[in-house]
Amino acid sequence: MNKEKLINTALMKEQPDLVLKNANIINVFTAEILHGDIAVTDGVIVGIGEYSGKDEKELDGKYVAPGFVNAHVHVESSMVAPEVYAMEEMKWGTTTIITDPHEIANVGGMTALSDILNVAEKLPINYYVMLPSCVPSTPFEHSGAVLNAEELKVWKDHPHVLGLGEMMNSVGVINSDKTVLDKLDAFSDKVVDGHFPMGSGKELNAYVSAGIATDHESISYEEAVEKLRAGMAVIIREGSAGKNLEEIVSGVVKNGIDTSRFVFCTDDKHLADIRKEGTIRYNIKKSIELGLDPVKAIQIGTINAARVYGLKQIGAVACGYKADMVVIDDLQEMTVSAVYKDGKEVSEIKSVLEVSYDEKLLSPINFAPLGSDAFVIPEKDRYSVIGIIDHQIITKKITMSNAELKAGLADGSVRKIAVVERHKATGFRAATYIKGYGLKHGAVASTVAHDSHNIVIVGDNDSDMLKACDELKRIGGGYVIIEDGKTVGELPLPLGGLMSLKSADEFIPELDTVIKKAYAMGVNKNIDPFITLSFMALPVIPEIRITDCGIFDVTSFSFVKN
Amino acid sequence: MNKEKLINTALMKEQPDLVLKNANIINVFTAEILHGDIAVTDGVIVGIGEYSGKDEKELDGKYVAPGFVNAHVHVESSMVAPEVYAMEEMKWGTTTIITDPHEIANVGGMTALSDILNVAEKLPINYYVMLPSCVPSTPFEHSGAVLNAEELKVWKDHPHVLGLGEMMNSVGVINSDKTVLDKLDAFSDKVVDGHFPMGSGKELNAYVSAGIATDHESISYEEAVEKLRAGMAVIIREGSAGKNLEEIVSGVVKNGIDTSRFVFCTDDKHLADIRKEGTIRYNIKKSIELGLDPVKAIQIGTINAARVYGLKQIGAVACGYKADMVVIDDLQEMTVSAVYKDGKEVSEIKSVLEVSYDEKLLSPINFAPLGSDAFVIPEKDRYSVIGIIDHQIITKKITMSNAELKAGLADGSVRKIAVVERHKATGFRAATYIKGYGLKHGAVASTVAHDSHNIVIVGDNDSDMLKACDELKRIGGGYVIIEDGKTVGELPLPLGGLMSLKSADEFIPELDTVIKKAYAMGVNKNIDPFITLSFMALPVIPEIRITDCGIFDVTSFSFVKN
Repeated sequence: MNKEKLINTALMKEQPDLVLKNANIINVFTAEILHGDIAVTDGVIVGIGEYSGKDEKELDGKYVAPGFVNAHVHVESSMVAPEVYAMEEMKWGTTTIITDPHEIANVGGMTALSDILNVAEKLPINYYVMLPSCVPSTPFEHSGAVLNAEELKVWKDHPHVLGLGEMMNSVGVINSDKTVLDKLDAFSDKVVDGHFPMGSGKELNAYVSAGIATDHESISYEEAVEKLRAGMAVIIREGSAGKNLEEIVSGVVKNGIDTSRFVFCTDDKHLADIRKEGTIRYNIKKSIELGLDPVKAIQIGTINAARVYGLKQIGAVACGYKADMVVIDDLQEMTVSAVYKDGKEVSEIKSVLEVSYDEKLLSPINFAPLGSDAFVIPEKDRYSVIGIIDHQIITKKITMSNAELKAGLADGSVRKIAVVERHKATGFRAATYIKGYGLKHGAVASTVAHDSHNIVIVGDNDSDMLKACDELKRIGGGYVIIEDGKTVGELPLPLGGLMSLKSADEFIPELDTVIKKAYAMGVNKNIDPFITLSFMALPVIPEIRITDCGIFDVTSFSFVKN
Repeated sequence: MNKEKLINTALMKEQPDLVLKNANIINVFTAEILHGDIAVTDGVIVGIGEYSGKDEKELDGKYVAPGFVNAHVHVESSMVAPEVYAMEEMKWGTTTIITDPHEIANVGGMTALSDILNVAEKLPINYYVMLPSCVPSTPFEHSGAVLNAEELKVWKDHPHVLGLGEMMNSVGVINSDKTVLDKLDAFSDKVVDGHFPMGSGKELNAYVSAGIATDHESISYEEAVEKLRAGMAVIIREGSAGKNLEEIVSGVVKNGIDTSRFVFCTDDKHLADIRKEGTIRYNIKKSIELGLDPVKAIQIGTINAARVYGLKQIGAVACGYKADMVVIDDLQEMTVSAVYKDGKEVSEIKSVLEVSYDEKLLSPINFAPLGSDAFVIPEKDRYSVIGIIDHQIITKKITMSNAELKAGLADGSVRKIAVVERHKATGFRAATYIKGYGLKHGAVASTVAHDSHNIVIVGDNDSDMLKACDELKRIGGGYVIIEDGKTVGELPLPLGGLMSLKSADEFIPELDTVIKKAYAMGVNKNIDPFITLSFMALPVIPEIRITDCGIFDVTSFSFVKN
């Protein structure tokens, strides 16, 4: 950055590249709305006041807010690649994202981190990374990689790394698990994100004493306030599944509590939802609807996050800050009429599509040969069956007699479910039964399966299930639907088996088609055919799961014999 | 820090070292006052709630605030060494100071920085350093050192360095002076303190665009608000001379502006004043008297500063934070009844007196031999005379005829003033006349002379003035008073010629004695005999000054022929 040029432009000795004339500027420092022109040069704001420039845009009193900050996001959940995701965020005013590449790291480990950080440097959005702290998430499954403190430290001083990603292993923290404390120690001079649902009392004290700075898991106002009081920055989540904003912000409005330590995030938000309403723009809009002062809502979505993560030139429309700005027609409705990133209109910024990924991330489907008996489950008197609950990702542990099982298989309420390790061809696999998925005939399979992302398959016959695995390998990962040995639906997700490399416009209809096909084949319409499936292998959510290592009873935290 | 121990103590699996029972805790995050016990182990707060410990103090509902932060202080102005100063601050609740060793660096350069940073590591107080950006302060005098960007960078990553100290050369910034921009560039990833009295409009935009983050020179509410809006942290100064708090805080109270970007400092405060009322404790108390909410006043004096300077474990009574705490009986009166530093009561902490300083800092009086005619001023028709103004450090430029001068010398209203370069025996020296100092007979001299700290002497005869220089050399710097060739008063300040090495209890009566002696010899009682003298050589304050290079007219920014 050429300071002399910034200084001279501020003084109007040189002409600014761009001046936004007659703006109503949201001043996040004083919580005021102030009228003025905004002068920009070299992508940096250099003047607020009266300015004229090479290029001028008359705003006629429209509002200008700082670019929004999405403080905790897993890009993988959008199922598009970072370079595609970034453009979708920017359209709605998000100019900074703080991502935890936890999913792709579980597949690709150090290669994934290297690739993501390379991409982060190239993207027009401010793309920051919190290094995933929990790869693998649990010891009850095989992921594609194990990342310990020494490996994470390799990336610690990368300019796009802000710290350590969400420490989901709260039990490990509280029990002073050595591998966990090694990671916390390694990042004690950086930001460490937390993840402590229902964390409270002395356990919360312990978790915070270990140096964990943020949490985005609060589901009530009371939980949020306890965490705030403990010194955490509370990141209010409003994603596709986790929707905590109304609960928390209603309490904030009612109680008038200081908002300076609140931040906004989406965590996981699907592309279709982002296209409809944006991310942080939506959090701000919804907060205003709930009665929060618009300027405070904007502070939460901008400067507050920048302060928590130590981002110096981000989160304000002020001299010396990046010219990342959102032009808003109607403050109550948060109508975004233009977005500027580094002083350029986002609508004129071309997506960076020359990004390349390592071969290892692009051919991730590698399972040991499966014999025709791979998914055979021996006959027994009693079976542990995964019970799907409509509209939920928690499951119910059902015990069935042999007769009940057979009746269920016959009437279609019960199907077989299998998980196959797909990273290192270790041969680990497991199978059991699932109730409530609702497929009539054939198999549905996915390589998106939290958090280790092995193959998960549901079917009524082993042959289609085996075929599904082969087809996933052929398409390089993604979703497939098989019927009588034929592939009747597919969605390739070649980037780690998690993300498409297509544009959003191409991807969305493809996704829509494969979901419709699954419903057409009888999948329960009260669940998402693939997202629900992707959570069946996550051995931390009650009550029962299946991983490549076996059937896992989350309530007793142990494997079940089938 | 042993995280396992912190965690286990938070959980009460291990007993805390100390528990403060039944406190009313100032929560700076939520701006609440909350009742609870505070558990401390290894000098760190690990629990808020119900705790029992090895040692317990019953607080019976007394208030507990975080240790105060003095965000901008020149320790040299206290005239005691850092190890003595630290204890004086701590007694009144300041547990963190952010210092700019600008004065001692002007004397000792890199040696001074090295010594100060060594001492900083040993002191019980959190002693942070902003590296002096303006050594020398001006090109119109000879200081003991020149510190350029390359030299400052040597210390940049020292754990006690937070950034670059106050950039007083605002003209240099606005004119893109290369040596100034080199320093700003070198510290662009750290905090850069500002110093821009009356900075406003496009010039302020330029100054802020250059990356300068703070300012402590605001003298009115309006000036403060303009700087806040520009994104600066506004440090409200209340020292011995600069008293800006009432103006600014009254405006804050009246207008109800957001206080999150205000910080407190003293800049320069004399030891006697500190002993009487403390530093930040006094700023907080006075703010409360002016109507500011006590919790907000405490936030300004604690967490706000910690955030601006990126201090992670400082500024809050919360888990994971240093156990730096102030126990307050009466919140309105800010009655400090106990102070804890790292969990230890300050009254039980011994001062660190085994500090040692480099020989170069301890024998700093080095001037070229002075002949008996050293201070002779040739007879002329007209003289440029420095006019002292009572109670001010600005001066008036007086032009006197030969007759007027002689009359003034005869009636005692005019005396001779000289400055002698004392760092490198360069032989630079200058002499002129001064009106209003008021000495009857003899000479008064000091090695404290902002900012280059050469010798400054006032006298009615050259012989006593020459003797004063020799005596200053003998005592290793400080203050002397000479009468008819005899030393009738002295105050040794051997640390750089600026600071005593004695304890505060020894030092204060010595200082008192020498000041009283000066008044007894006829020095004008509306000025401080030594502090006023120390500003006569500062060539940035209007209207006229004397440096070792000559008589300097600040209004025309040029030397005057005498």
